[in-house]
Amino acid sequence: MPQTLRKKKGLILVHTGDGKGKTTAALGLTFRALGCGWKVLMIQFIKGDWKYGELDAAKKFAGQLEIHQMGEGFTWVVKSDERQKELARNAWEFGKKAIAGGQYQLIIFDEINYVLDYGFLPLEEVVETLNNKSENQHIVLTGRNAKPEIIEIADLVTEMKKIKHPFDAGIVAQRGIEF
Amino acid sequence: MPQTLRKKKGLILVHTGDGKGKTTAALGLTFRALGCGWKVLMIQFIKGDWKYGELDAAKKFAGQLEIHQMGEGFTWVVKSDERQKELARNAWEFGKKAIAGGQYQLIIFDEINYVLDYGFLPLEEVVETLNNKSENQHIVLTGRNAKPEIIEIADLVTEMKKIKHPFDAGIVAQRGIEF
Repeated sequence: MPQTLRKKKGLILVHTGDGKGKTTAALGLTFRALGCGWKVLMIQFIKGDWKYGELDAAKKFAGQLEIHQMGEGFTWVVKSDERQKELARNAWEFGKKAIAGGQYQLIIFDEINYVLDYGFLPLEEVVETLNNKSENQHIVLTGRNAKPEIIEIADLVTEMKKIKHPFDAGIVAQRGIEF
Repeated sequence: MPQTLRKKKGLILVHTGDGKGKTTAALGLTFRALGCGWKVLMIQFIKGDWKYGELDAAKKFAGQLEIHQMGEGFTWVVKSDERQKELARNAWEFGKKAIAGGQYQLIIFDEINYVLDYGFLPLEEVVETLNNKSENQHIVLTGRNAKPEIIEIADLVTEMKKIKHPFDAGIVAQRGIEF
């Protein structure tokens, strides 16, 4: 279906690029949406076993914000590609059900672009599911290397481009800012 | 003082570029920081009289998050340059005091790059103030056209680059996503 024919009320947003701010901007959208009284679901495809400031902040919005972390971390060394694929697929199935259920006004698929880029999810199915989503839902897809097919169906695409990063100067990640 | 000699604990972050996500990513950092128990100050240099989802969400963090909006909106048509300058200067003075006071772990100067680009604030003074800030503070500066002098002293700079925007397709701004 050509993009011009798709009814556009609920937006598909993409945050891609090699810079910081992709997940953080999704988190900002979450904060804003919660303030509007929306129900929000965030599905994390990668940083599954980290501990985030946002998880604590999220407690203030219990019943309104749900964060779904992929079963295990995304450690290339430890797990086989097959296991990674299975975990990514499970997280996607969870998200697909949430899209179909229609109970969330905002769903964030965090780092899904990265996982799609590795061929760990069926791209065609993801595109079709997003194209057929309810118009009362906004969807955010984050992660570097967003597929052209995803950019094609998106309404808003921002590339977060790294200009300067503290790691370059040997500064370690700092709690509250980086995680 | 050469950048390499500056002690770097509290970071200076810059979100610039023509794309979406500059303020939103700052908002995400706010959300994360609040979860870490930090005190956060956001100074808005431009969108002073808008009503945001984040203002409602912020109420959940009363006593921890303070949002300071510049006295009047930033309407080029209505107000003289002199009045704009005065308002921007007032907001900056407020922020400068907050930096000196040291009570906030995160201070966001929202759209200050834009205001600096218009020459409405004394760039040298801003650079010097940021360079001499306490190492227990993180500072975020958002807005397009970040000055080279600002990028120079920053630890992390991300350019939010517009790849695709719904306005291009004639779609209006949507509550909860855009504002």
